[in-house]
Amino acid sequence: MTTVLIAVDKPKSAQEWVRIFKELQPDWNVLEWSAGLAEKAEIAIVWRPDAQLFIEQPQLKAVFNMGAGVDAIQFEHIPESIPVYRVEDGGMAVQMAEYAIYGVLQATQRFAPYLELQKQSQWQVLRPVQREQWPVGIMGYGQIGQRVAQSLTALGYPVSAWVRTARPSTDGVKLYAGPDQLDDFLHATRILINVLPLTPETRGILNKDNLVKLQAQSYLINMARGPHVVDQDLIDVMDQGHLSGALLDVFHQEPLDATHPFWQHPSILVTPHISGVSLRWPTAKHIHEKAVAFLAGQPITGLVQRQRMY
Amino acid sequence: MTTVLIAVDKPKSAQEWVRIFKELQPDWNVLEWSAGLAEKAEIAIVWRPDAQLFIEQPQLKAVFNMGAGVDAIQFEHIPESIPVYRVEDGGMAVQMAEYAIYGVLQATQRFAPYLELQKQSQWQVLRPVQREQWPVGIMGYGQIGQRVAQSLTALGYPVSAWVRTARPSTDGVKLYAGPDQLDDFLHATRILINVLPLTPETRGILNKDNLVKLQAQSYLINMARGPHVVDQDLIDVMDQGHLSGALLDVFHQEPLDATHPFWQHPSILVTPHISGVSLRWPTAKHIHEKAVAFLAGQPITGLVQRQRMY
Repeated sequence: MTTVLIAVDKPKSAQEWVRIFKELQPDWNVLEWSAGLAEKAEIAIVWRPDAQLFIEQPQLKAVFNMGAGVDAIQFEHIPESIPVYRVEDGGMAVQMAEYAIYGVLQATQRFAPYLELQKQSQWQVLRPVQREQWPVGIMGYGQIGQRVAQSLTALGYPVSAWVRTARPSTDGVKLYAGPDQLDDFLHATRILINVLPLTPETRGILNKDNLVKLQAQSYLINMARGPHVVDQDLIDVMDQGHLSGALLDVFHQEPLDATHPFWQHPSILVTPHISGVSLRWPTAKHIHEKAVAFLAGQPITGLVQRQRMY
Repeated sequence: MTTVLIAVDKPKSAQEWVRIFKELQPDWNVLEWSAGLAEKAEIAIVWRPDAQLFIEQPQLKAVFNMGAGVDAIQFEHIPESIPVYRVEDGGMAVQMAEYAIYGVLQATQRFAPYLELQKQSQWQVLRPVQREQWPVGIMGYGQIGQRVAQSLTALGYPVSAWVRTARPSTDGVKLYAGPDQLDDFLHATRILINVLPLTPETRGILNKDNLVKLQAQSYLINMARGPHVVDQDLIDVMDQGHLSGALLDVFHQEPLDATHPFWQHPSILVTPHISGVSLRWPTAKHIHEKAVAFLAGQPITGLVQRQRMY
């Protein structure tokens, strides 16, 4: 019998995941992990796991991370021999596409001014958007970035993306690759959407040097991780009038401290990390499928390459 | 030489259209029509035209309407022998898809409450949307309705549509046809999007009898014509709590009178007929292509069937 451990940061949530995986695969021995557990497992399914798990369970054959981002995993405690897989969608991509559209509408459309006009019962037609004046640039182009791109090209926006390694574009989205083409990418972008993984290379990438390379009156949508942004740089570039606004869902510290200047900045919208909520069932099914295939010796996608952290 | 008349309701706009069509087809004799004009034309390109045009120019071979809706055309003055064609897209479909998404986000998402929480610097995660609980129903399924449907299925919403005559679904959107299936369509809908043409059959279709058949806590998005809605019925059904809100872009009288109750209703959003702005160049190119093909004797789409008014 295959033993599967659930190691998540909240006990109540752990019990729910145990229940779901037992239902998906009744012949698995699904256990909630806690330090000192005697049973030895083949598979661990984790979210923000305690490093002790990997110290006590070096025999694990694979680890499945419940999210797309693996920055909460302490790889230094996981033997190189144990592969770590991440969720590639799990129902999040569609949510993130919708959140991105919300940000794009904030940037381009006049719905906020129309609300103000409505308060005064005032009928006044404002200049319509010219989509071609709002080129969108997506940083990070995995399954989520591609879904976001698809939704925005369907709405008539010009879309490009910045990827790690050069590859041919297959969907009409212009690709810029690597550090060499970052400047060109930024120069070509007016709505910047960040869905990068958080790695040593991408930490702090949304700093003053890079933000000022965006087109005038640009808009930032950050759905990835707070530490991609240098907070004070963002505020400075915005207060200098180069950025017109930002929609931020992720922060260095979450919850965002009540005294943080983002909250009351007139051009910043703050949401509490809700752009891509990991939905239990789609995530569980996604991981279950992968784990079953893995145990059967079949090839699966989503293997995290430790040197690049995604 | 082909003579083409421009007959629109605003003189300044007429001059602009003349200029554009001359540029598109220099060998046409493009003239702004006014009553008493001596030249006789083959083609008239019109928006809210004066009926006098058709009385004076019975020799016209075709009339091209600059919009998708032909309810401002007085067909009783146009000889049956003159075909009237309407614009089927002209750059409007993508705008209307975007407007529809704005309405759907208003209905389903928590962005408005998140704005309120932000004012209090308060981090609080609200229950996420369950897309499957927000089935979208589109009334009218021409090029615009289909584009709207496509954008919303891409965002994971279940979408159905109500059409005049039964036909097989080709894109996964469930189709309900004709008056017989209207009730079933309404029962299956929680977000109702109206893009119907205005005809004697559809005038007043959004009345109390029909609105109460929608699912509880439904949301209405009207992008078609004001007279589709019985205004007081909409307010009554909303005040009884059956509808959760509405996004309205079109009205019986435009501009909407400053005393109209829609303006200050807490659950209604009003915009000044901006959901699909006819963009000059895309519209002109669309009509130009059709007119050239028509004059060459080729078959073209968009012929208005007078008995159904679209």
